[in-house]
Amino acid sequence: MMNDFQSADMERRREHAMAKVWNAINDHGGTTLLSTGITADDARLAKAVVDAGVRMLEPNHPAIALARGLHGVKDMHNAEAVRHELDLTEIDRVVQGVRAVAGPDVFVTVGIPGGFTELQPVDLGERHFYDLARAGADGLHTHKSCFQDLDAWVAMAHSHGLTVDAYIAHPDDRHPFGIPAGTPEEVAAVARRMEDQGVDMIGLMTGMSYGGTEAGDIPGEIKERLAALTEAVSVPTLAEGGINADNYHAFRGTGVHVIVVGTSFDDVARRAVAETASKYIGTAVPVPSS
Amino acid sequence: MMNDFQSADMERRREHAMAKVWNAINDHGGTTLLSTGITADDARLAKAVVDAGVRMLEPNHPAIALARGLHGVKDMHNAEAVRHELDLTEIDRVVQGVRAVAGPDVFVTVGIPGGFTELQPVDLGERHFYDLARAGADGLHTHKSCFQDLDAWVAMAHSHGLTVDAYIAHPDDRHPFGIPAGTPEEVAAVARRMEDQGVDMIGLMTGMSYGGTEAGDIPGEIKERLAALTEAVSVPTLAEGGINADNYHAFRGTGVHVIVVGTSFDDVARRAVAETASKYIGTAVPVPSS
Repeated sequence: MMNDFQSADMERRREHAMAKVWNAINDHGGTTLLSTGITADDARLAKAVVDAGVRMLEPNHPAIALARGLHGVKDMHNAEAVRHELDLTEIDRVVQGVRAVAGPDVFVTVGIPGGFTELQPVDLGERHFYDLARAGADGLHTHKSCFQDLDAWVAMAHSHGLTVDAYIAHPDDRHPFGIPAGTPEEVAAVARRMEDQGVDMIGLMTGMSYGGTEAGDIPGEIKERLAALTEAVSVPTLAEGGINADNYHAFRGTGVHVIVVGTSFDDVARRAVAETASKYIGTAVPVPSS
Repeated sequence: MMNDFQSADMERRREHAMAKVWNAINDHGGTTLLSTGITADDARLAKAVVDAGVRMLEPNHPAIALARGLHGVKDMHNAEAVRHELDLTEIDRVVQGVRAVAGPDVFVTVGIPGGFTELQPVDLGERHFYDLARAGADGLHTHKSCFQDLDAWVAMAHSHGLTVDAYIAHPDDRHPFGIPAGTPEEVAAVARRMEDQGVDMIGLMTGMSYGGTEAGDIPGEIKERLAALTEAVSVPTLAEGGINADNYHAFRGTGVHVIVVGTSFDDVARRAVAETASKYIGTAVPVPSS
């Protein structure tokens, strides 16, 4: 579908997207936020965080599966098991809506079925990359766990002017959310190879998926792995997993360019509406005093 | 599509739904909450309020238009202008997802294109009522402003086992969200006629649409109109519009069975995520002290 007479245009499209990322990083003092979860797939809350200053959003298929109650899933772990079933056109509509309320200057990277390490085949063709770009996506949030698939993914994304943010995982992680690297040296080596292959932003998985790290700090091993990543490459770096209001200061201190926060946003929104609902019905349902 | 050999079944289906409503009213001391807005169309937050004790949910098409950023709409007033464009299958999926996480005992009434006073023709046929019922809806949240259309709506809904909650408006309301009634006497007369026509629950529009009433109290005129409604009929009554954390006590005091709250939930969720986002990026963007 894509032709030679569009390849420079698509490179320019990608450079324009990366300029948005670097501007956000610089304007936020060296570390910015990639806001995901409910703040990136619900247009009401995407607008709320953008109004608060957020410049990067990441709608993704497991979070949308959770938003839609697909097969009744109620947490992110179970959403991972059904995420590949989400219709691509549903994701296009999410991107279109989020772009419409966030405006053109916000960077939007999208997780789609086929872009993670999927357990099932996904019917994903060139047309879907085209549709996503046209819906307003700047990039593809990617969790491939093997270079073979990642390299092909990067080529397809780039030919449609879409950036790729890809991740490095720990071999022991619960979900395979990136290319595995056991030691800091391996982290650096994988990062360099990703950069050589054209990956536009490189992230490190920093939590036991969806678990938290210790309140206020992050483990020494994670710090060493993040240092190895940030020193190895010149593209923007990201930290994803287990980042919350208690420990984000420690993440900023590592020099990583982007912290990725999703579940923590879902949790504050859940708490806010649950507390409000309890107030409305609570008066009528006093807790028995005995 | 519907046949004679299903009419008693569908009546039974509707009785079962109304039993859920009465149980919620009684369990919550005479006044319960119909939770709408983001708490009724996002499965993550629907689960959060149901876990907090909510027993009635109302996904509706203007709120879903806002959730999806349809045409870039950013507030409920503008969502009303595009709500009829929302695809019916999208609403079916919302109902299915909310039902899947909320469980069978929560009452779910749904606003759909064609069920409000629409400004454009809507392609809505018997099949859509069937699909909604099968998706898990108990009823249809209805804002018709003329008995002619309301009566036909009730017949179609009932034949598919769906309840109807319909509303009484003030002739001066910004949006035509119910049958207009200027005086308390007219409110009572309209309510009685609705009950005679089989409307299952009767509501009164109590806010200047989406505006608020005075903090802590509600205007005397609204109290009189609510009293006229609650005294006129024996079906459950609802109050909708302008209800928030400041004035809900005053609404409960009127004896209305159900208070409808949506925008107030959207607002607390927006505030919660915006404050959290500011915290994450705020450290890096100190306000200049000069």
